[in-house]
Amino acid sequence: MSASVPAAVCPPKRILLGPGPSEIAPRVLAALAAPTVGHLDPYFLRIMDETQQMLRDVFRTQNALTIAVSGTGSAGMETCLVNLLEPGDRAVVCVNGVFGTRMADVAARCGAEVTTLERPFGEVIPADELQAVVRKVRPKVVGIVHAETSTGAWQPLEEISAAVREVDALLVVDCVTSLGGLPVEIDGWGIDAAYSGTQKCLSCPPGLAPVTFGPRAVEALDRRKTKVRSWYLDLQMVRNYWSGQSRAYHHTAPINMNFALHEALRIVLEEGLDARFERHQRNHRALKAGLAAMGLSYAVQEPFQLPTLNAVIIPEGVDDKAVRGQLLNEFGIEIGAGLGPMAGKVWRIGLMGEASSPRNVLLVLAALEACLKAQGRSPQAGAGVAGAIASYDGRA
Amino acid sequence: MSASVPAAVCPPKRILLGPGPSEIAPRVLAALAAPTVGHLDPYFLRIMDETQQMLRDVFRTQNALTIAVSGTGSAGMETCLVNLLEPGDRAVVCVNGVFGTRMADVAARCGAEVTTLERPFGEVIPADELQAVVRKVRPKVVGIVHAETSTGAWQPLEEISAAVREVDALLVVDCVTSLGGLPVEIDGWGIDAAYSGTQKCLSCPPGLAPVTFGPRAVEALDRRKTKVRSWYLDLQMVRNYWSGQSRAYHHTAPINMNFALHEALRIVLEEGLDARFERHQRNHRALKAGLAAMGLSYAVQEPFQLPTLNAVIIPEGVDDKAVRGQLLNEFGIEIGAGLGPMAGKVWRIGLMGEASSPRNVLLVLAALEACLKAQGRSPQAGAGVAGAIASYDGRA
Repeated sequence: MSASVPAAVCPPKRILLGPGPSEIAPRVLAALAAPTVGHLDPYFLRIMDETQQMLRDVFRTQNALTIAVSGTGSAGMETCLVNLLEPGDRAVVCVNGVFGTRMADVAARCGAEVTTLERPFGEVIPADELQAVVRKVRPKVVGIVHAETSTGAWQPLEEISAAVREVDALLVVDCVTSLGGLPVEIDGWGIDAAYSGTQKCLSCPPGLAPVTFGPRAVEALDRRKTKVRSWYLDLQMVRNYWSGQSRAYHHTAPINMNFALHEALRIVLEEGLDARFERHQRNHRALKAGLAAMGLSYAVQEPFQLPTLNAVIIPEGVDDKAVRGQLLNEFGIEIGAGLGPMAGKVWRIGLMGEASSPRNVLLVLAALEACLKAQGRSPQAGAGVAGAIASYDGRA
Repeated sequence: MSASVPAAVCPPKRILLGPGPSEIAPRVLAALAAPTVGHLDPYFLRIMDETQQMLRDVFRTQNALTIAVSGTGSAGMETCLVNLLEPGDRAVVCVNGVFGTRMADVAARCGAEVTTLERPFGEVIPADELQAVVRKVRPKVVGIVHAETSTGAWQPLEEISAAVREVDALLVVDCVTSLGGLPVEIDGWGIDAAYSGTQKCLSCPPGLAPVTFGPRAVEALDRRKTKVRSWYLDLQMVRNYWSGQSRAYHHTAPINMNFALHEALRIVLEEGLDARFERHQRNHRALKAGLAAMGLSYAVQEPFQLPTLNAVIIPEGVDDKAVRGQLLNEFGIEIGAGLGPMAGKVWRIGLMGEASSPRNVLLVLAALEACLKAQGRSPQAGAGVAGAIASYDGRA
């Protein structure tokens, strides 16, 4: 062996309670390591068909064009915008966090004239404000984030959708940190296009982006006057590989990642969506009760706190990096740092998919108590854990 | 369990002798299934550092900007072109197969004025013809395919590079079916940017695209007047995640795919590049000897036949689909169909990475003899296998 060859991959076992990737079920890792087959193998085409149907179930949609894009969640964002926007089109993008900011950037790179509707990080977008903007701008596309991973804010969508429909625009929704963890009703809410990532509430490793396009979005795609700017993400071609008579080769799909997603979706549907959403809520309530007992509060106001991503205000005088470092190095627990204007001000504790469990709630509270004690904060030892247990018992 | 949940993934074991994905070593599948860690975890950053260095070794380059893009090979192609081309830039693309055709399409979507230099599928691009075109067009970028997966043609690059350098253009090379299987000398040949895929001669599942940018390409990137059209593939941002002080979050990297690539690169370097190239040649020679003994010939002329992708002319009267179907269903062997104008005219037998072995050469020849016999061709039974054995023995 050459001296320059590094040692083999042997990662430490982390408990993933950050903004994603989340915990992965052993079944999903086993599917990931199943023998690779060709991207045009009849077996793989069957897996693609089944995956599409399961994605429709999870998105709660009948949309034929519902696939897993061969990139991570941000590639899903780009897929929606680059296929729907042509140079000169008007877009309104709601910006109340890092991912709304990113969406505005992506839309501008598609050549669109972008108008942003901004609210401070941590707040949600009021439907009446959006209504006023879209009545004025008359955009082709409106983009909004359902679950802002950077702030922990949960955006209500039904009134937003009505405002968008009123001006006959297309509603594009970022469901990266919601799909599989809280209700996403593509058809019920009239969402025209949406994207997600595999590594959040679906509890699959990162690498694919579920995307769905409704009839109005497909019509816009079919009516394009210009080629989609991205060849790799061009749904006019990609859809012919995922369905239809030809199953025409476009690019070589990430075979094993699709195996993993298939297994992850099976787990979601076996649990049942409603049971899964309730589990996320229950563990979120327990975490919140425990944090409250420790004197910690949320960056987002009720009732807009995401159950999947808990943005917690870092107490005055506590060393952000030291706490996250101790959690990682002493306890093997990953939580997230704040992003953008929230850097150094919040911790982001994810309870997504497999990671949303009583075990992890108690563990992260207990470990956080140890870390705060190490910071000289001397919280009442066990208060956080006791608070969570009381919540599970129905006493809080 | 709901009735709508399909059965778990349980793929058949195929022998992958098509255009990719190729065979995967068990070690690589094991690394793929290692526990997921966060994309900013110090452990993952170390894996990224080691992967970059191993990619430099395999590309034979000192290029600092050498990374694995979070998409398949076609995303690598798009990464190179979308970062180097701005609207109105002139590009010359050499087209002698499906992937040159694709490169011209991608370059046009970047807003470039594209001039193509075309040769029939199966031929290579003569350097003097390219020299004449680039002297006339004076392009910013010249794109060419090193190993045309669609035709099996092996493009010499040294004189091409000299012609490109003479007009001070940037040379972008598609190394998808060459990297790790035959010599790729990024620095030695003066290649400015190159991309590959993980699922060919590196024998890793599909899902990542190794990309390298030399100093002149980085300079062009730094001098851009417009934003890169793709946010997801924008190296101005992606490079800050892969290296530098900040390791700033850009997108969530496909963690487990990067684990697998790390292990696949370790295998390549343990074997040694020169030994690996010689192995690919040796098994290619044996396959060719066996095919010749069966009366089958190549679609590409000597000395431009790729050792990694053998495009074999389908004999008159033989049913292309029936043979490929029998190989897959009876023997579990995947070979590739012809693409584009070569559809129905050639089979593409890949001997890439792990798949390039005497065992597979004898197996595919023996199985092909059975399939041709089923087609009523009654070849002399065992002639192909005998021819390959003679080649291994040094008698042919």
